[in-house]
Amino acid sequence: MTVLEIRIELKKGVADPEGENTKKALELLGFEVKSVKSIKVFDIELDEENPDKAVEIGKEMCRKLLANPVIHKYSVEVKRE
Amino acid sequence: MTVLEIRIELKKGVADPEGENTKKALELLGFEVKSVKSIKVFDIELDEENPDKAVEIGKEMCRKLLANPVIHKYSVEVKRE
Repeated sequence: MTVLEIRIELKKGVADPEGENTKKALELLGFEVKSVKSIKVFDIELDEENPDKAVEIGKEMCRKLLANPVIHKYSVEVKRE
Repeated sequence: MTVLEIRIELKKGVADPEGENTKKALELLGFEVKSVKSIKVFDIELDEENPDKAVEIGKEMCRKLLANPVIHKYSVEVKRE
């Protein structure tokens, strides 16, 4: 069993309205914030025992479903084996 | 300047429809998946130089805005100083 951590973040220059609005809300509450970036993470548990193969499967998941290559970059790491 | 990584995840036993639907979609694409857990991460840049103080500010942000204590647990880490 392998648990992957797949991190989907916006490419540089792509607007991040969720981050922007979170920043505004924190400022309204009195926090001083320079920037907020929103990131989506999926922890995915696979039966695959080989960590290298699991990472390859994770990258394929990003290409086929989880990430939009126009706006997202992604990283896949083994969290637990 | 300190960059915090704030991780908001669902408590055990709380339904995760986003994770469930992602799992179904991955299975429809032919992937074998045991579980998918969805997590929200914010990278927050602060002017605060002291990393311990920055973490305290991050935890206060979670309590006041970012996390719902009924369903979420959160962790705050210093990503870059």
